[in-house]
Amino acid sequence: MLSREDNALLTRVERGTPMGDTMRRYWMPALLSRELPEPDCPPVRVRLLGEDLIAFRDTQNRVGLLDEYCPHRRASLYFGRNEECGLRCVYHGWKFDLDGRCVDMMNEPSELQFKDKVATVAYPTLEVGGVVWAYMGPPERKAAPPDFAWTRVPATHITVSKVIQETNWLQGLEGGIDTSHAPILHRLLTTNTSRPGFKPDNPFVRGKAPTLALDVTDYGYRYAGIRPLNETSIHVRTYHFIMPFHQIRPSRSESGVPLVAGHMWVPIDDEHTMVYNWEYSTTDAPLTDEDRLERRLGNGPLDVDQTTFRAKRNRGNNYLLDRQVQKTESFTGIDGINAQDRAIQESMGPVVDRSREHLGPADRAVIQARRLLLEAVRTVTDGGVPRGIEPTYAKLVAAEAVVPRDADWREMSLPAGSQIEQTV
Amino acid sequence: MLSREDNALLTRVERGTPMGDTMRRYWMPALLSRELPEPDCPPVRVRLLGEDLIAFRDTQNRVGLLDEYCPHRRASLYFGRNEECGLRCVYHGWKFDLDGRCVDMMNEPSELQFKDKVATVAYPTLEVGGVVWAYMGPPERKAAPPDFAWTRVPATHITVSKVIQETNWLQGLEGGIDTSHAPILHRLLTTNTSRPGFKPDNPFVRGKAPTLALDVTDYGYRYAGIRPLNETSIHVRTYHFIMPFHQIRPSRSESGVPLVAGHMWVPIDDEHTMVYNWEYSTTDAPLTDEDRLERRLGNGPLDVDQTTFRAKRNRGNNYLLDRQVQKTESFTGIDGINAQDRAIQESMGPVVDRSREHLGPADRAVIQARRLLLEAVRTVTDGGVPRGIEPTYAKLVAAEAVVPRDADWREMSLPAGSQIEQTV
Amino acid sequence: MLSREDNALLTRVERGTPMGDTMRRYWMPALLSRELPEPDCPPVRVRLLGEDLIAFRDTQNRVGLLDEYCPHRRASLYFGRNEECGLRCVYHGWKFDLDGRCVDMMNEPSELQFKDKVATVAYPTLEVGGVVWAYMGPPERKAAPPDFAWTRVPATHITVSKVIQETNWLQGLEGGIDTSHAPILHRLLTTNTSRPGFKPDNPFVRGKAPTLALDVTDYGYRYAGIRPLNETSIHVRTYHFIMPFHQIRPSRSESGVPLVAGHMWVPIDDEHTMVYNWEYSTTDAPLTDEDRLERRLGNGPLDVDQTTFRAKRNRGNNYLLDRQVQKTESFTGIDGINAQDRAIQESMGPVVDRSREHLGPADRAVIQARRLLLEAVRTVTDGGVPRGIEPTYAKLVAAEAVVPRDADWREMSLPAGSQIEQTV
Repeated sequence: MLSREDNALLTRVERGTPMGDTMRRYWMPALLSRELPEPDCPPVRVRLLGEDLIAFRDTQNRVGLLDEYCPHRRASLYFGRNEECGLRCVYHGWKFDLDGRCVDMMNEPSELQFKDKVATVAYPTLEVGGVVWAYMGPPERKAAPPDFAWTRVPATHITVSKVIQETNWLQGLEGGIDTSHAPILHRLLTTNTSRPGFKPDNPFVRGKAPTLALDVTDYGYRYAGIRPLNETSIHVRTYHFIMPFHQIRPSRSESGVPLVAGHMWVPIDDEHTMVYNWEYSTTDAPLTDEDRLERRLGNGPLDVDQTTFRAKRNRGNNYLLDRQVQKTESFTGIDGINAQDRAIQESMGPVVDRSREHLGPADRAVIQARRLLLEAVRTVTDGGVPRGIEPTYAKLVAAEAVVPRDADWREMSLPAGSQIEQTV
Repeated sequence: MLSREDNALLTRVERGTPMGDTMRRYWMPALLSRELPEPDCPPVRVRLLGEDLIAFRDTQNRVGLLDEYCPHRRASLYFGRNEECGLRCVYHGWKFDLDGRCVDMMNEPSELQFKDKVATVAYPTLEVGGVVWAYMGPPERKAAPPDFAWTRVPATHITVSKVIQETNWLQGLEGGIDTSHAPILHRLLTTNTSRPGFKPDNPFVRGKAPTLALDVTDYGYRYAGIRPLNETSIHVRTYHFIMPFHQIRPSRSESGVPLVAGHMWVPIDDEHTMVYNWEYSTTDAPLTDEDRLERRLGNGPLDVDQTTFRAKRNRGNNYLLDRQVQKTESFTGIDGINAQDRAIQESMGPVVDRSREHLGPADRAVIQARRLLLEAVRTVTDGGVPRGIEPTYAKLVAAEAVVPRDADWREMSLPAGSQIEQTV
Repeated sequence: MLSREDNALLTRVERGTPMGDTMRRYWMPALLSRELPEPDCPPVRVRLLGEDLIAFRDTQNRVGLLDEYCPHRRASLYFGRNEECGLRCVYHGWKFDLDGRCVDMMNEPSELQFKDKVATVAYPTLEVGGVVWAYMGPPERKAAPPDFAWTRVPATHITVSKVIQETNWLQGLEGGIDTSHAPILHRLLTTNTSRPGFKPDNPFVRGKAPTLALDVTDYGYRYAGIRPLNETSIHVRTYHFIMPFHQIRPSRSESGVPLVAGHMWVPIDDEHTMVYNWEYSTTDAPLTDEDRLERRLGNGPLDVDQTTFRAKRNRGNNYLLDRQVQKTESFTGIDGINAQDRAIQESMGPVVDRSREHLGPADRAVIQARRLLLEAVRTVTDGGVPRGIEPTYAKLVAAEAVVPRDADWREMSLPAGSQIEQTV
């Protein structure tokens, strides 16, 4: 459990809050690159850390990210015109470039040079991994660009999607770094079904309740869920938590191709999260169009409106829960592994009251993440650099296997040939 | 009128409020038995006195009523699995029996026996009259089971329904114990109509404005509206108010069968009420399928969604008010006697500001109910037992008749052959 | 900019607020006369300055405007019966005349004469210009009836409409007295389009950014936007601001008939405004049915639901913004000049934070209006009579023309043959 005070401390992310200031030290996923498909295309609304912003791709293919509201009279730049290297407010024709400079003003005589006195909030952006990232913190603290194994993968081999979760960001993260729920919530009741999930004959399901092994690192932590299978074998599944909201986990396509996958739980505001989902092929084979539908996860274009990024299975329709399917085919009666996650996490309310929890040993990774986040808040408050700012995480992978009881899980969480890092 | 303070005192029912604590001394209707049709059927959400709960019928046909949120990480048990005498949370597989004990845990090694340290909130239930009742108060104060004439009637002779009213509970009750509005709000303008209501030739309508006679009793009060018809006759209609929210009144089916009927205005929360409606045949004849449609009241399956229990005529559509019908056929232009009640009571806002009322002699029963409710709050605060806890009300009936001017209305409010009770 | 305190002072209009008390010194448009088409027709809900009211046309064709809530038990008179010179509550049959007197009571014996002790809130009304106006201030301060040039025009020559804007009233007014935005926001990109707006060859558009000339008057102010066209000519467009929320401007029908037009931004409550739109022919020719559709403005029955007065183009559908049209035909991609105004003003949020503005010389009229409104609040607080109470504005007109550089714009803002008033 957390005290109500610490719960508020970790979950509130608006500008000026301790966690909000901490978040703003990291590069933030702001939108998918494909939402701005070409230079001078229509601008897009972005809500990030409780701030209303407008993203636009300018004539030179650079992405600008401005305060939504024109500094003149506070009209929304969403209605603006994306013109020749700038976004122009339609109310009085003030035009801003991607640095926030006012470069033209239609309603004032040009000889007044009034435009030179005006600027708006603009955040630096960069694009890697099919994602536009923004830096919203103090300029002098600007971090190195994000650099993950998945952002280095060629576009042919990776898919990235996003979907809104109607909870605080931490609720999503805590589901994602909790191996203990996965073979329960996502379990199938029979091998005789085509629904997504873990079948009864999967060692992930067959294993007993896990013990957790965890190494704190300079980027966050790595950990493994270790499930006894029998006298000689264990099932091991390794994960990484990279501060402040990245998960890396092993996965597998429907056709059996081994994948590395992960999520980012990016705060829209205190009660909404944009969940980014990525996964890439670890073989020479590229991802197929079918792979990009993410049917088994429920994150793709069949399951999520690609304009609003709202899930078709949502609280308003009880996630299309089918009680008969729940009796006979899947543990939840809800289709889609991540739809199941959203259903259960949204059911806890927008910000779960962690002072009323009862955590056990299986929640060790969740508890450790909270400790690291509280530490980061203190570090930032004290003027320091929190974990995960430096891209020491750039080569991390994750894996899952049945291994002898005495196998070293740590080797599985590193790229082939790597040295095991010194753990903190 | 009531002071704003007393208005708040009587209308707020969350745990820890004075009225909330008083309500919790009585058995509360929680849901209809038929909402849980068979053992191990899907669980149902129940919101009662501002508490979010989950009801389930276990393998042994007993009804459990648990805190909606699993004590582990606060996921909703609505998504739970109703399995072998317990409800299992799908997030981590914690299972609770109807006493709230944790009887299994899938995510922790069983040798830890961590489950023995965990329990959740569970309220005792019982089923009578086709209703599941819950006791949410201090265990040492648990009241005798509810026992009404209507809960003793065979199922063939009674119908019970429910519908959400979008107001505080007291607003509903105050309509139900106010005989003065009935032949006005529910009046028809012509005998030449098939719409429900009281026709102009009905003595209830023909009578002059009523005087009210009222006896306070150990369960609440009984009262009569007495309407002069002519030199020799009066129209009398008797009612009972049983603490804290029960009404008993005379009624009559569309085909003319005499009925006894009533309502319970059960607080969902401070601004929503679940109105339970019951009526039973006082003859040997059972109720027909047609009777169970409650067409004249607007409470049955033709008028109320049987999953959400929201009325089809509601504030959003102005209760399908027809101004032409209002000109020529019925006083309101709205069909359904209780639909008319909900329309007018919801029009007062979710919690009417009783400090702005202007009450007259005809509001005497309303005023007396408030006095008894305030008395009950004081009694409970002082550690005592409020009126209506003991089932002294078990045989009460109500009646309506045209009688000589000097007839004794009190006899009409008792079962045939009963003694008139001593009134307080 | 305004301080947050002054912003709140000018935008809050509930009873008892300084601006609310100031507004209540003026006659307020309450509804269109045609919403109450005949004696004893159905009553209509009116929300005005945050007060919930019911309007009804009585048997003698007079309009009553009562507190929505019956003083008895606070049921809504919306459901009431409009009967023989009074509105009767359907709950207990209390009937009120248009002065608020209780003239009948069905639920109390008439011999008690209880009705004589009861009255409800009633506001005086009058009808001019196709509008029902209400006076909601202190009776001893009741102002002279509204008397505008447009309220004197025969019905054949004028059209009046209304539409809800989802912002505070001041946001609407500030758009209406801001000439600087008009040829920008409402601009067309090509002469080759049938969409509404100002075409590139219009001198209003061809002119350079305007300078503003402004005379404060006893009714508010008059002002002109003066746009240089070339060495010898200027484009002049004159406006009037009549306290507290009237605009008069020049206009022109689609077929080229010269019109005088205007708006009134009447507060529904702090976050909603009823915008009244009027325009009349200044020639002998009456308006046509086509003119009354107000296609170019987006205010007529094709664009606004005539029961709810909600615009079909609204925030929920991004005003049906067409990005392709925005690229090639119109500055906004939204059809309807006033739909464009509502889009941009609603985009600022319900009450724009004026402490974050950056105003320039082109905002001079906006700044001056705020000064006059703050002055009016002080005047009323000090017991005085604010500007615009006396109908000194009765003959004002507005005009637009290309004139020589040294022409006097003041003559254009007066009826032909008038003397130029002394300006304050």
